[in-house]
Amino acid sequence: MAVLLKEIAEFVSAELAGGLEIKINELLNIEKAGPGSLTFLGSKAYEKFFETTQASAVLVSKGFTGSRSDIVCLEVDNPYQSFLMILKRFFEYKHELSGISDSSSIHPDSKLGEGCAVGFNVVIGRNCVIGNNVTIFHNSVILENCSIGDNTLIYPNVTIRENTVVGKNVIIHNGASIGADGFGFVKGPDGNYVKIPQIGNVIIEDFVEVGANSCIDRAALGNTIIKAHTKIDNLVQIGHNVEIGSNTAISAQTGVSGSTKVGNDVIIAGQVGLVDHIEIANGVIIGAQSGVSRSLKDRGIYVGTPVKPINQFKRLEVHIRNLETLNNTVKELQKEIDTLKKQIES
Amino acid sequence: MAVLLKEIAEFVSAELAGGLEIKINELLNIEKAGPGSLTFLGSKAYEKFFETTQASAVLVSKGFTGSRSDIVCLEVDNPYQSFLMILKRFFEYKHELSGISDSSSIHPDSKLGEGCAVGFNVVIGRNCVIGNNVTIFHNSVILENCSIGDNTLIYPNVTIRENTVVGKNVIIHNGASIGADGFGFVKGPDGNYVKIPQIGNVIIEDFVEVGANSCIDRAALGNTIIKAHTKIDNLVQIGHNVEIGSNTAISAQTGVSGSTKVGNDVIIAGQVGLVDHIEIANGVIIGAQSGVSRSLKDRGIYVGTPVKPINQFKRLEVHIRNLETLNNTVKELQKEIDTLKKQIES
Amino acid sequence: MAVLLKEIAEFVSAELAGGLEIKINELLNIEKAGPGSLTFLGSKAYEKFFETTQASAVLVSKGFTGSRSDIVCLEVDNPYQSFLMILKRFFEYKHELSGISDSSSIHPDSKLGEGCAVGFNVVIGRNCVIGNNVTIFHNSVILENCSIGDNTLIYPNVTIRENTVVGKNVIIHNGASIGADGFGFVKGPDGNYVKIPQIGNVIIEDFVEVGANSCIDRAALGNTIIKAHTKIDNLVQIGHNVEIGSNTAISAQTGVSGSTKVGNDVIIAGQVGLVDHIEIANGVIIGAQSGVSRSLKDRGIYVGTPVKPINQFKRLEVHIRNLETLNNTVKELQKEIDTLKKQIES
Repeated sequence: MAVLLKEIAEFVSAELAGGLEIKINELLNIEKAGPGSLTFLGSKAYEKFFETTQASAVLVSKGFTGSRSDIVCLEVDNPYQSFLMILKRFFEYKHELSGISDSSSIHPDSKLGEGCAVGFNVVIGRNCVIGNNVTIFHNSVILENCSIGDNTLIYPNVTIRENTVVGKNVIIHNGASIGADGFGFVKGPDGNYVKIPQIGNVIIEDFVEVGANSCIDRAALGNTIIKAHTKIDNLVQIGHNVEIGSNTAISAQTGVSGSTKVGNDVIIAGQVGLVDHIEIANGVIIGAQSGVSRSLKDRGIYVGTPVKPINQFKRLEVHIRNLETLNNTVKELQKEIDTLKKQIES
Repeated sequence: MAVLLKEIAEFVSAELAGGLEIKINELLNIEKAGPGSLTFLGSKAYEKFFETTQASAVLVSKGFTGSRSDIVCLEVDNPYQSFLMILKRFFEYKHELSGISDSSSIHPDSKLGEGCAVGFNVVIGRNCVIGNNVTIFHNSVILENCSIGDNTLIYPNVTIRENTVVGKNVIIHNGASIGADGFGFVKGPDGNYVKIPQIGNVIIEDFVEVGANSCIDRAALGNTIIKAHTKIDNLVQIGHNVEIGSNTAISAQTGVSGSTKVGNDVIIAGQVGLVDHIEIANGVIIGAQSGVSRSLKDRGIYVGTPVKPINQFKRLEVHIRNLETLNNTVKELQKEIDTLKKQIES
Repeated sequence: MAVLLKEIAEFVSAELAGGLEIKINELLNIEKAGPGSLTFLGSKAYEKFFETTQASAVLVSKGFTGSRSDIVCLEVDNPYQSFLMILKRFFEYKHELSGISDSSSIHPDSKLGEGCAVGFNVVIGRNCVIGNNVTIFHNSVILENCSIGDNTLIYPNVTIRENTVVGKNVIIHNGASIGADGFGFVKGPDGNYVKIPQIGNVIIEDFVEVGANSCIDRAALGNTIIKAHTKIDNLVQIGHNVEIGSNTAISAQTGVSGSTKVGNDVIIAGQVGLVDHIEIANGVIIGAQSGVSRSLKDRGIYVGTPVKPINQFKRLEVHIRNLETLNNTVKELQKEIDTLKKQIES
């Protein structure tokens, strides 16, 4: 996977004074870059690494004044953006899976589009519709009546239960569970829990990504919906009948309880919990480990358990940290009052 | 899956003035119900939706006064209960799996009961005893010396390690891990961790449900036990030697540390953590994200980290929210005292 | 699995007055030990169980004065250590897997060492190097260009993505995800998230243990590294480019965000969250459910959200619990001041 530096420079329209024939075989961050690697200077904070980096070449902003005789600098408008473009053009990993494995079990009533790759021991149930260029890695299972859109990529050991709708260009990572029963029970006459059959489904729209071992439960009735371009990290729990808007990002180990609606362009950090039946407005940002026990109707940043607007949270944190001082102040006041009493009495 | 309304009305003993021939093909909540669907009015709070719902039929309480010419109302004693009965009778999903797949690997020394369904690539190890009408979905693995009771349902990609005992009518969802080693190590003479072999097992009693990608670890010695009718949500961690009583509900992403005993009829919300070697009394309710660092010996509702009785928690929350006011009050007192001092001195 | 007591006594150099022919078929904790079992008295706190235990034999410290005619006591220097030695020597479970299953799919360009066991439906991609005595259980998947060291044990339904390096004597439990893409996106010109291809890998060093359904993400660039002898519990999330030192223990449901560096000999309890790009010094201990939002540069015990040194945390907890009292005190001061005012005015 070695690429000539002149090819890279041409691709990002950077002029090269020399080093045309240097072979770049890896992209790395500047702290870790070694010989044969290309890196980038994304912000002032990293300029200190320029003196010591062992990279062979560095993408820098136009007008960057640093200089080292043993390193080739490629001047571009936006080093990080150019770095990502180079990454995608020359270094993105191409999965090797192709064709339909003999050991896969595809129901004869199901349809596969053109150019699909289906790995070993994959199971596709009755009446599924799989689009074009879909890749399904080894040992994943798709039960009956599912549809999977074009270009979708499903990694190994994923389970997709019956009646699930997956859009185009979706990525589902190792071990994710799509469409398991929601957590719904009522108490029976004998005091034992009785299961409420979960007869809804899951709809995942285009360009969604679902992290490894995350769980998206099927609706009790109707649909659990993840809208287009939303990205879900690993080990996330999405309860039944939840609706997540588009372009929302949900970090690892967060849980969204049943029937809650999360808007568009929401950012939820890791290990956040949202109770059931609430609504989160578009554009809300929720800090890590927050406990969201009420609807958040206004755009803003929220933190804490129970969740508060970040400014309120910070003020309270200051007050809490100052509790020792406050206690001492109150004790001082007590003494002063006692002194005053004595003065008055005397 | 269309059912005539007259058949439904007869089943729940509701009299129909008309609409006998309407075909119901879906059950939905009243906010989402469209033409061809049956819904229910479960509480006053939802009556506002009656005016606008597009459902074809609605289950209502006897004596409900609302009326719409385009909707059939079915009067019953308990609309939600009737709705669930209809759901189970007419709309519950029937899995299509049947027979023993050729690509499953069942050890010849293991026994399967009558009417079992075993999916593709299922592995059942030596000396297992599988009851009647057990369903094991594709790509699940059961290692040696396990027993699985009648009517139990195991979804895809589940792993059940050796010597596990699973009762009757149990449901285990996608990707769950039953019987993995507990987290037990001692420091060796060279300072490195040394594994303590985990030679106990897991016992799951009848009617238990285990959520997707949840983990129940085998005991170090003896048994990890989940008692009858207990329901465990997704991504829950149950440590080694834990005992969970019967009819207890544990919500998603909660963790129960080693050797802790949870009683019967306990309700634990999501993302709760329980430390090891504690006991939770019967009937305790623990709020979301709580950190339970001590035994809870009395029935009641507990919240917070560290966990507190809910009333105490709420009072403290009020005090915390009032800290700004308290600080201001103290400052005012300081001023008043200063004023008094001056008055006395003058 | 019955072992004669005389064989056990000889192994731990304990003298037996009688009971040589007793058969021990189970090891159990003293509270649960029944006939035919061996147990141990590890600390004073458990001596109360000595009077009632139904064990057939008990390991006790030299000089232990208790005595029961129906129980054989084996005197040793360190009962728990001897118990663990007996456990490993006589009672450790031997997995039954052996040979290479016909239904596994091993790419012809990959190499397996001597004495490997590969279960049903295992997939090993192109160009993998598997050491000697490696055990890979059923339905696990290893994609191309991976290496797995000698004696490593991989349980069922594990996924290891391409280019992963796994050391010797590693244990990976059911359903773990190694090398899934890190959670990296940028906003594109149309406001939609664009995936940053994650082209790094995961390196797991010797003697590491990875819990069931835990996730270790591949690096964006370079490596995500778990150093030797580190133990990771179930449902743990390790983000891209994280480095975990050696002999560190991470309990269940903890999450470590991208590029964070955790030192050696660190202990992290359950459900802890660490933000990205921080460093945790060697020997740090972090309490359950803590939220670590900054680097911890000094050895010590830390607790809380946001994380604090444990002494500070405890002092604050006391102040918080005393808030009601403080409020009352302030009210009293107000009254006293009002009284003083009146006295002065009059």
